[in-house]
Amino acid sequence: MSKYTIGIDYGTLSARALLVDVCDGHELASAVFEYPHAVMSEKLPDGTPLGPDWALQHPQDYLDALFEIVPEVVKNSGVKPDDIIGLGIDFTSCTMLPVDKSATPLCFSEEFKNHPNAYVKLWKHHSTQQKADEIDRIAIERKEKWHANYGGKVSSEWTLPKLWELLDEDPDLYDKMYEYVEAGDWLVWLLTGADTRNSCSAGYKNFYNKQTGYPSHEFFKAIDPRLENVIEEKCFAPVIPIGSRAGRVKPDIAAKLSLLPGTAVAAANIDAHVCVAGAGVTRPGQMLAIVGTSTCHMTVSTVEKQVPGICGVVEDGLLPGFLGYEAGQSSVGDIFAWFCRNCVPNAYEDAAKERGISIQQYLTELASVQKPGESGLLALDWFNGNRSILVDFDLTGMILGMTLQTKPEEIYRALIEATAYGTRMIVDNFRKYGVPVNEFFATGGISQKNAMAMQIYADVLNMPVRAVDAKQGAALGSAMFAATAAGKESGGYDSIQDASAAMAPKNAHIYKPIADNVRIYEELYREYAILHDYFGRGINNVMKRLKKIRLE
Amino acid sequence: MSKYTIGIDYGTLSARALLVDVCDGHELASAVFEYPHAVMSEKLPDGTPLGPDWALQHPQDYLDALFEIVPEVVKNSGVKPDDIIGLGIDFTSCTMLPVDKSATPLCFSEEFKNHPNAYVKLWKHHSTQQKADEIDRIAIERKEKWHANYGGKVSSEWTLPKLWELLDEDPDLYDKMYEYVEAGDWLVWLLTGADTRNSCSAGYKNFYNKQTGYPSHEFFKAIDPRLENVIEEKCFAPVIPIGSRAGRVKPDIAAKLSLLPGTAVAAANIDAHVCVAGAGVTRPGQMLAIVGTSTCHMTVSTVEKQVPGICGVVEDGLLPGFLGYEAGQSSVGDIFAWFCRNCVPNAYEDAAKERGISIQQYLTELASVQKPGESGLLALDWFNGNRSILVDFDLTGMILGMTLQTKPEEIYRALIEATAYGTRMIVDNFRKYGVPVNEFFATGGISQKNAMAMQIYADVLNMPVRAVDAKQGAALGSAMFAATAAGKESGGYDSIQDASAAMAPKNAHIYKPIADNVRIYEELYREYAILHDYFGRGINNVMKRLKKIRLE
Repeated sequence: MSKYTIGIDYGTLSARALLVDVCDGHELASAVFEYPHAVMSEKLPDGTPLGPDWALQHPQDYLDALFEIVPEVVKNSGVKPDDIIGLGIDFTSCTMLPVDKSATPLCFSEEFKNHPNAYVKLWKHHSTQQKADEIDRIAIERKEKWHANYGGKVSSEWTLPKLWELLDEDPDLYDKMYEYVEAGDWLVWLLTGADTRNSCSAGYKNFYNKQTGYPSHEFFKAIDPRLENVIEEKCFAPVIPIGSRAGRVKPDIAAKLSLLPGTAVAAANIDAHVCVAGAGVTRPGQMLAIVGTSTCHMTVSTVEKQVPGICGVVEDGLLPGFLGYEAGQSSVGDIFAWFCRNCVPNAYEDAAKERGISIQQYLTELASVQKPGESGLLALDWFNGNRSILVDFDLTGMILGMTLQTKPEEIYRALIEATAYGTRMIVDNFRKYGVPVNEFFATGGISQKNAMAMQIYADVLNMPVRAVDAKQGAALGSAMFAATAAGKESGGYDSIQDASAAMAPKNAHIYKPIADNVRIYEELYREYAILHDYFGRGINNVMKRLKKIRLE
Repeated sequence: MSKYTIGIDYGTLSARALLVDVCDGHELASAVFEYPHAVMSEKLPDGTPLGPDWALQHPQDYLDALFEIVPEVVKNSGVKPDDIIGLGIDFTSCTMLPVDKSATPLCFSEEFKNHPNAYVKLWKHHSTQQKADEIDRIAIERKEKWHANYGGKVSSEWTLPKLWELLDEDPDLYDKMYEYVEAGDWLVWLLTGADTRNSCSAGYKNFYNKQTGYPSHEFFKAIDPRLENVIEEKCFAPVIPIGSRAGRVKPDIAAKLSLLPGTAVAAANIDAHVCVAGAGVTRPGQMLAIVGTSTCHMTVSTVEKQVPGICGVVEDGLLPGFLGYEAGQSSVGDIFAWFCRNCVPNAYEDAAKERGISIQQYLTELASVQKPGESGLLALDWFNGNRSILVDFDLTGMILGMTLQTKPEEIYRALIEATAYGTRMIVDNFRKYGVPVNEFFATGGISQKNAMAMQIYADVLNMPVRAVDAKQGAALGSAMFAATAAGKESGGYDSIQDASAAMAPKNAHIYKPIADNVRIYEELYREYAILHDYFGRGINNVMKRLKKIRLE
């Protein structure tokens, strides 16, 4: 008899629950809840103003989502709660909130409800850039070994910059806070009563290493003396590996969710990272690229290598028992959207409208008939800086080769090609430092919407690109982790690999490299690589100097 | 009592006559004639097809223009023919035609009327590129000294490539041709009966040097044995300096023109070059830039220097008695037009339409409020190759510094700035090789239509830019040369300097450099110069390699 699990994917603006059959991952029901408070970037609900680059959320939205969409999928699926064996949650990350001992967010209290730092700091809360810079400076000064595992660069989005900001701005809140938790771990705690930190967020976002633990007290003390014992005092919950069971749904909660008490709950996960298993990527040497507004590249390996310019390497970070490597391109779809918004003439917009297709579809049609190299254009995809492998956000975009005959669709294609070269640069860099990449999977919006782009990626990488149709990618991944948390004895699986093999989408479209294109793109990629190093590795720092002049 | 002259400017699509008072250049009448045959690039009037890159004209159009617009300005001005003391003609160049001994174009004959080579080859007749390349190869091989006076590069537009093509394709026509003449010289011949070559076209377009004459027989023989005596056989008319009188209007023609017989006719001139005097640029160290779709830079000097990368240095080329230097940027306004055609979004076009202004005006308004360096953008203005100082048409455009926030008006301004840096590069190059440039004059469409562009030029050059409102620039210049041909004894002038001083427009708008901008542009120009050399001088030949890949 079939068993079922529920995956919940907490995104930036909404949460989505998915109820699937554990046999094959078949979807029986899904439901979406949009957060009423969305992202608070200007003021708190009571009008308290926020500073620049703040991005907060209201934890009540997460609870409202939970108690609405879980019962909804149970009801709509027609599945009996007895057959629902597990629940898994993934969340945007690093998305942090301060809670009291009962796991109640401090922003719920009268005392702190008008304190900005008491709310959830969303992943894209960026007022912490100076903190991150200072952490980097100190880590480099102290030659902290763990620093290299993060490509030598701490993101303003991570736990420590957010927590340090809280301490600095609101020391009273810091004192009264019992713990500072990831939103995903917090929900798991509420559901099960078990206060845990998942290995994925702890590893990628808070410097946790399975072998060596967190950074030293001396390091934290060097950041701020008050932070010397920050781990023991504010981040003390035990780290549990993803793929494990965090606990079971408490009776009082179960009723409100239309679930049975005791239903298994998986360790929380990050929305991007959970897609790896979700897309069926479970073997060393396989890489998954989530190609959307930006691109996240993840690959699992049996070897731990220090690879410069990546976002992080974390044991149990993507799959339990493996090293999980993450790299990224800070803008991909965003570049194409920028182009469509700013650089497409009237006639094209009219033609697209007449045809009833989007401007991106129209440009793609025109660009599809071009041969590689035909436009004579070459671009650098650094419109939002370079995440990997240069880890330099002062770099900017470039386009070269224009003539008076150059057409918009040629520039559009050159920008797509540039992002493919950027991905190739990341793949080559992993290989150079001893992390094999043998198979390439793509998911995310562009992988489904733009066949031309995926063919270009296959040609540039000289590898087949398997575009996995994972519309529910993250939620499905969470449902797999839920099945693993339930275990085989309950009708689930004993490993995420088994769960993924059974439940991952089977309908990948495979783009095979075309030999003629590969040959030309090999030449063009060499040109890209020369300019990549020329502009990106300090030979000509013109982009930085222009940025400096600009700021003056 | 006032005296008058007529200047006729033969352009690419029309001819314009201007009748002015020699005292002050005041316009009394003007008339335009559009060539009925315009540019023939696909077929002859009888349907004979033309090859790719051909561009012919019909000499009957020039005659029809002459006999319509000269009587028209005389009539409309109300001036008596007795008071019209001279006529001057300037023409696009190098615009060549084969004629018989009576100066009748061979395309008028039954025998040759269906021979493409018998028609006028317009300046932009470009099927001659291979011929030009071969001439360069041989000139370099033979270490021809004159070659350096042309920046080491012969243009496909010049006399010899056109004539050699004629010889190759139509040897019978070549044999029967009495002479191969510039269209301007041909008209002067018809008017006066005097067969002359003006020093400007002979110098800039046919390698004539006042001190050393034409290149040697050995050189021409090396090109093609049949060309050994080409000068004596087909280009033999005496070279006369511009500013001199070629002759006087013949009685039979005078009547048809409503002029008196014996009216002085100036040596012909080139339409761009005649603008130098026309704009009041008559002193060494002054430079005139005609800023239009492309830009032509001309400066007069007392010193003869070999300046790499210029178009030519010719004694008597711009003003009699001086060395005339010419350099150029192969695309300027063309780049802005390309941008407006291809890269401006709907919303901008709508906004411009609503305001009732052109898209260029709208972009200029938006770009005007930007400070130098504010956009963080830097461009190379090589969308149509680089004429001066790199003389390399395989170079292409580049834009750098884009972010996801970059706006169209910022790119537009960066492109304008790039053309200013390109001009600065030319000015600096003249100075470096010993030709002083102390004053900068601008004329041409952009100098009048875009005050922001002219301010940028002033700031980048760190020199005042005098934008001369010379709507009739070329025709007025020709009228000045006409006054000089007439001479002081007839109520004209004894020198073109005197004529220009009296007759040039007095209403120049002066753009003064703004110190703050100069400082920033100095920094930005340094960045431009680094990229100019990196991409343009062989350090990274990526543009050429991309072009090669493209052609494959």
